[in-house]
Amino acid sequence: MNDCAELCSGPLSVAELNLIDRYWRAANYLSVGQIYLLDNPLLRAPLQPEHVKPRLLGHWGTTPGLNFVYAHLNRVIRARDLDVLYVCGPGHGGPGMVANTYLEGSYSEIYPDIGQNADGIRKLFRQFSFPGGIPSHAAPETPGSIHEGGELGYALVHAFGAAFDNPDLIVACVVGDGEAETGPLAASWHSSKFLNPVTDGAVLPILHLNGYKIANPTLLARMDEDELRSLFVGYGYEPFFVEGDEPEAMHQLMARELDAVVDRIRAIQSEARNAGSSARRPRWPMIILRSPKGWTGPKEVDGKKVEGFWRSHQVPIADAHGDPAHLKLLEAWMRGYEPETLFDADGRLRPELQALAPSGERRMGANPHANGGLLKRELKMPDYRSHAVAVDAPGASVAEATRVMGRFLRDVMELNAEGRNFRIVGPDETASNRLDAVLDVTERAWMEKIEPYDVHLGQDGRVMEVLSEHLCQGWLEGYLLTGRHGLFSCYEAFIHIVDSMVNQHAKWLKVSRDLPWRRPVASLNYLLTSHVWQQDHNGFSHQDPGFVDLVANKKADIGRIYFPPDANCLLWVTDHCLRTYDRINVIVAGKAPAPQWLAVDEAALHCASGAGIWQWAGSEAEGLEPDVVMACCGDVPTIETLAATALLREALPELRIRVINVVDLMTLQGKDQHPHGFDDAVFDGLFTRDKPVIFAYHGYPHLIHRLTYNRANHGRMHVRGYMEEGTTTTAFDMLVMNELDRFHLAIEVIERVPGLAVAAAGVAQRFRDRLTAHAAYIREHGEDMPEIREWTWPGRKTAG
Amino acid sequence: MNDCAELCSGPLSVAELNLIDRYWRAANYLSVGQIYLLDNPLLRAPLQPEHVKPRLLGHWGTTPGLNFVYAHLNRVIRARDLDVLYVCGPGHGGPGMVANTYLEGSYSEIYPDIGQNADGIRKLFRQFSFPGGIPSHAAPETPGSIHEGGELGYALVHAFGAAFDNPDLIVACVVGDGEAETGPLAASWHSSKFLNPVTDGAVLPILHLNGYKIANPTLLARMDEDELRSLFVGYGYEPFFVEGDEPEAMHQLMARELDAVVDRIRAIQSEARNAGSSARRPRWPMIILRSPKGWTGPKEVDGKKVEGFWRSHQVPIADAHGDPAHLKLLEAWMRGYEPETLFDADGRLRPELQALAPSGERRMGANPHANGGLLKRELKMPDYRSHAVAVDAPGASVAEATRVMGRFLRDVMELNAEGRNFRIVGPDETASNRLDAVLDVTERAWMEKIEPYDVHLGQDGRVMEVLSEHLCQGWLEGYLLTGRHGLFSCYEAFIHIVDSMVNQHAKWLKVSRDLPWRRPVASLNYLLTSHVWQQDHNGFSHQDPGFVDLVANKKADIGRIYFPPDANCLLWVTDHCLRTYDRINVIVAGKAPAPQWLAVDEAALHCASGAGIWQWAGSEAEGLEPDVVMACCGDVPTIETLAATALLREALPELRIRVINVVDLMTLQGKDQHPHGFDDAVFDGLFTRDKPVIFAYHGYPHLIHRLTYNRANHGRMHVRGYMEEGTTTTAFDMLVMNELDRFHLAIEVIERVPGLAVAAAGVAQRFRDRLTAHAAYIREHGEDMPEIREWTWPGRKTAG
Repeated sequence: MNDCAELCSGPLSVAELNLIDRYWRAANYLSVGQIYLLDNPLLRAPLQPEHVKPRLLGHWGTTPGLNFVYAHLNRVIRARDLDVLYVCGPGHGGPGMVANTYLEGSYSEIYPDIGQNADGIRKLFRQFSFPGGIPSHAAPETPGSIHEGGELGYALVHAFGAAFDNPDLIVACVVGDGEAETGPLAASWHSSKFLNPVTDGAVLPILHLNGYKIANPTLLARMDEDELRSLFVGYGYEPFFVEGDEPEAMHQLMARELDAVVDRIRAIQSEARNAGSSARRPRWPMIILRSPKGWTGPKEVDGKKVEGFWRSHQVPIADAHGDPAHLKLLEAWMRGYEPETLFDADGRLRPELQALAPSGERRMGANPHANGGLLKRELKMPDYRSHAVAVDAPGASVAEATRVMGRFLRDVMELNAEGRNFRIVGPDETASNRLDAVLDVTERAWMEKIEPYDVHLGQDGRVMEVLSEHLCQGWLEGYLLTGRHGLFSCYEAFIHIVDSMVNQHAKWLKVSRDLPWRRPVASLNYLLTSHVWQQDHNGFSHQDPGFVDLVANKKADIGRIYFPPDANCLLWVTDHCLRTYDRINVIVAGKAPAPQWLAVDEAALHCASGAGIWQWAGSEAEGLEPDVVMACCGDVPTIETLAATALLREALPELRIRVINVVDLMTLQGKDQHPHGFDDAVFDGLFTRDKPVIFAYHGYPHLIHRLTYNRANHGRMHVRGYMEEGTTTTAFDMLVMNELDRFHLAIEVIERVPGLAVAAAGVAQRFRDRLTAHAAYIREHGEDMPEIREWTWPGRKTAG
Repeated sequence: MNDCAELCSGPLSVAELNLIDRYWRAANYLSVGQIYLLDNPLLRAPLQPEHVKPRLLGHWGTTPGLNFVYAHLNRVIRARDLDVLYVCGPGHGGPGMVANTYLEGSYSEIYPDIGQNADGIRKLFRQFSFPGGIPSHAAPETPGSIHEGGELGYALVHAFGAAFDNPDLIVACVVGDGEAETGPLAASWHSSKFLNPVTDGAVLPILHLNGYKIANPTLLARMDEDELRSLFVGYGYEPFFVEGDEPEAMHQLMARELDAVVDRIRAIQSEARNAGSSARRPRWPMIILRSPKGWTGPKEVDGKKVEGFWRSHQVPIADAHGDPAHLKLLEAWMRGYEPETLFDADGRLRPELQALAPSGERRMGANPHANGGLLKRELKMPDYRSHAVAVDAPGASVAEATRVMGRFLRDVMELNAEGRNFRIVGPDETASNRLDAVLDVTERAWMEKIEPYDVHLGQDGRVMEVLSEHLCQGWLEGYLLTGRHGLFSCYEAFIHIVDSMVNQHAKWLKVSRDLPWRRPVASLNYLLTSHVWQQDHNGFSHQDPGFVDLVANKKADIGRIYFPPDANCLLWVTDHCLRTYDRINVIVAGKAPAPQWLAVDEAALHCASGAGIWQWAGSEAEGLEPDVVMACCGDVPTIETLAATALLREALPELRIRVINVVDLMTLQGKDQHPHGFDDAVFDGLFTRDKPVIFAYHGYPHLIHRLTYNRANHGRMHVRGYMEEGTTTTAFDMLVMNELDRFHLAIEVIERVPGLAVAAAGVAQRFRDRLTAHAAYIREHGEDMPEIREWTWPGRKTAG
């Protein structure tokens, strides 16, 4: 492959080759400097221990490869005026991203304090991994980045998310061979089966095989070339190999293959776009770049192999501060890049090298797609009221909440069809989750063969379904971070699959919000449905309401959790969430036919408050405190609470029950802990300071205790929720197994209201008998007793 | 491929073909019956609506393919006396697994109530997805299963886990084409790069392309055959294709290819075993089975395509109960299997069909590997005391806790080397986590090429490193569930990657513990290190202590969470966890050099209690209640708490401080909530009923509030922990950012002890000044003030 005659023949002239190599060396020099130096940034003086940082933190190994790619992308961008976004999978190579954005000038524009001179370089070096400075990875602080790369696995899926609906964009995505071992990355290659060459941009994967992780070789680097090629052909790509360690030959090879690859991308796109639609998914090109880990760094340290081995992963020369031999080695290494030939007397990159970077927004550090808020356009929103369910009286109508939401989303989809900035993702569950109205106006994205009997598949579909929550999440993150909008609809239990991705996105948002130059991006919106109380048919593995606990651990500014009790509330909440920015909104709502409680205006009022008393459902007496508060949060717990109040009103008409419904879970926290939290006065006004509260909650009960532990009345909060009991049974039996059903709730009221346990012992016993009867009935008939199946809200009788 | 002459030539004789087809039909019949019938199980009477279940729950689509595979595996098991475990990735096909284990007799042995006669079949049908019956998926209740298949993605990695160190076992693993889209599954194919043909068994992947998920085609089924073959060749396999829909041809094809595949496996193994070690990873065979979804079911229902389409996914005929046409269709479908030719007058499988099943433990439903507790041998345990760090006085020694643990694990590894039943998994971090002593006695498993300069790689290694937490987790689950032992060492932040897998394993354990026939398996043990307070160098993305919150949501019987404060405590906890069964043990411990507090006997006493007063650290006065309790949980919070007490003792010698260290987090919960929970009396005795408690906790503070909300003194619990603040900085600065450092703790004591806020305002101000000085110092020098870097425990001075 490295045929010399061919290499010498170009595509780079000797002068061009020399320039690009110098540019690369400048980036490498600045990368090493960031890891090591406190001062003497251009080595104008002999290197002394006091010039070296006391704590050496950073990752060298991946960096020279990242710099190599960056320099060559600069070349094709300039040569062809390309719009390229750089996704850096090996985010540990932060010094490289910082070095390159500094060289091209975008860094100093965003951070004017880091100027284009020797003092700027000194500050650039010093701030890296330094208290009060910048983190060691590519991060929100890094210009041009939409991707952290701290937790590995998501580079490629982010790249695809960025490319969707950006037809002129090329997303160059470096995938490290360590990252390539992860599950999410292994699945991400299939994303090209959802990318439409007519309306989407291109993703150019650059698999960077530098051979090693922290302490092991990587799987992909040790595969033989036949298997490697076969794997990526099997994934649907055409691999172009760039392999070697001799810089000049590698520059020629990379330049040539990058030209070829861009030609191929343009050919694919123009063919597809001329045809109007593409008959078949193209075989997209990719680059497999094999270069030594820690390339151009020290070959050996203390007699041990470093370059081309995992010992170069972090800081190759460990004790440059304390060991004179190490210091010498470091100095030789850095001087080997010949900084005096790269920077002028002021410390400014020499003009002939400056000229190699693209200009303006073509610089990858200034590409607006990497600061999506800049490009973001508001969604055009339909009036959610137009989809309202008529509710003449509480409980008088029946609806499937998510089906109603689906019709609203259909309108959102339609209104923004031209804008091409809204997508819905989900693991094969859009219809199962009753959102299929959206398929009236768009299709499911699909670039493989479509059979005549297939339903709602299309190359231009805006609903993205794949049986991988990781891909759904990653695509949507990439889409949002580049300025668009979307919704992830998922079975509640399986959203845990992306817990760690949500953590990382929350961290990204948290940091971004403190960077004035990063503009807000649309919120990450979840609809969690087919939830724990509606997974009676799929059983225990499908029953888990714990995702909201994870979100509740996030910074208060970031997380919002909504439990709309009916369809009209779900409409309000959906409308609200789609208008917000920089948040993670979790909406938990069921898909089963269920009684509807609030007319649309009441729903709006109730949801805007976040929680409130449902006067019509309780049995309070004017001017008297209630005997007990029955609180509910979640659609099914709301039904059970109302059913329990009905049972109690009939059996104990004197009992004064207050019913509180909670939509916005965060209202339960104190105002000091969450911006949505109720003041103590408001909270106490609702929940009282001293009456028993029977709280029926959708998820794990502990979360309610944790949110309310500071409230005056928390000692009397008796929370029922999911107790990790489940199987395949009836939906009502699931409630009974977890003691969240109407009978258990009613019994607990009797037990908790002072005096009632004795006075109403017979009533409690009757409820227990009903539970016994229920157990016998379902085991006989396989379905719930008629009184459960046919239950309707009896309306409010006279207050006690 | 379906060449008739070839097919007719075998390998099955006409008689054999007829028998295996009838066996398959029997399994299909029983599968449909489970989904539909309450009664009239053998259709001895015309089918009536009352024979049909009122709620139809189950998944037909995948089932006939699973049955087909099962029947053919039976054939090769009998023909060659193979030891085969069946891992059913499409766990939704529960009816198929139940049908087959019933046909072979293993089901009735475990559940004698479900006899081998018509009444047994009636009960078999009725119990399926029926209240009080069995779940709809393959589950712990299913004989022969180690795999639920509810949350998709883990079949293949479980299969490999089962195969490790079981040289005679073949793990046949059906991977559905839906599941094949997930990230974890996409990475799992690489597992063969860790499987040693000499000492491990074989995994036979059977990729079942039935074409559809719930409502979409699958990616792999729509790839063209060239790409598909290329993909799996690239993954390192030799694919054997079995494609078609005509049963006779398919039986011949499957029989032939299965013979070929088993021959290939045996050839690979004998070659490797004769050679003593295998020079290179073999190219293992796999089967790609392409058969119609819902095969042999109704072709159309209500004019819509069902067989060979996603509409067959669940219940193909929806209204068999209410719609007479549907009922007729169901009856015709079931009668089409000719049950009268399959079962005798008593409802017993006809003898010539019974003879097709293997016998005894060769039956896949009775394979003891699927009930790992049966095969489990206790680990041989070294005396952890022999690794104890000498601690002459609290704080007098310094050690890296995980390095000490590593030496203990080395001995565990060595003592059980012959037993071959202990492995350590981790994502490339064994050395980084300071457990590298284990590499003195074993290697890292590696079947790819090994270079002369590689370190600690070996084909027979028992440390398994891959940059995929999913693979680590899945391998270990499979290994444990088949009766072995292990430990997962992981960076704390990234263990969230497997949250959902942990959920599913916890569910498996929870259900298994209630099944007397399932014997206990070794606990799933985690060491979480490189934790949030030691990720100052990697930054925010690597800082997340939330995994324990997830585990705390599990059933109390399942989860245990330990925060050993020093190396000797870590030794005790590790020893303890490795001896337990059916649990999920989480150990959080640091790797940095740190002061040691307890001599080994003190550590044993302290850890066995779970939490206790550290008299030597506090300043209580004999017979007097303390003024304040300073509690700590976690190694770093313990240091900060002790440092704070030292500050306070010096500044306020009269203050009576009680120091409590918590090792076992679950002691904080009530006895009624967790078996490790302290009685209220014990808790109150420790934490007092009315003194302020300043609680320094390793993770998110809310967890402590949630665990203690029922305790008398919870209103005075002031918990400090991780507040989601982080970046790349010094370790101490991380504590300051989260207000968990010694100064913040000491200031809070002054603010919370009645009267002290005023009396000791000057002291508090001095502490604030130190914080200011610290901030200035690190921003200047890039490291902590000397007083922090050089801090040592001053020992206990006189009590106040």
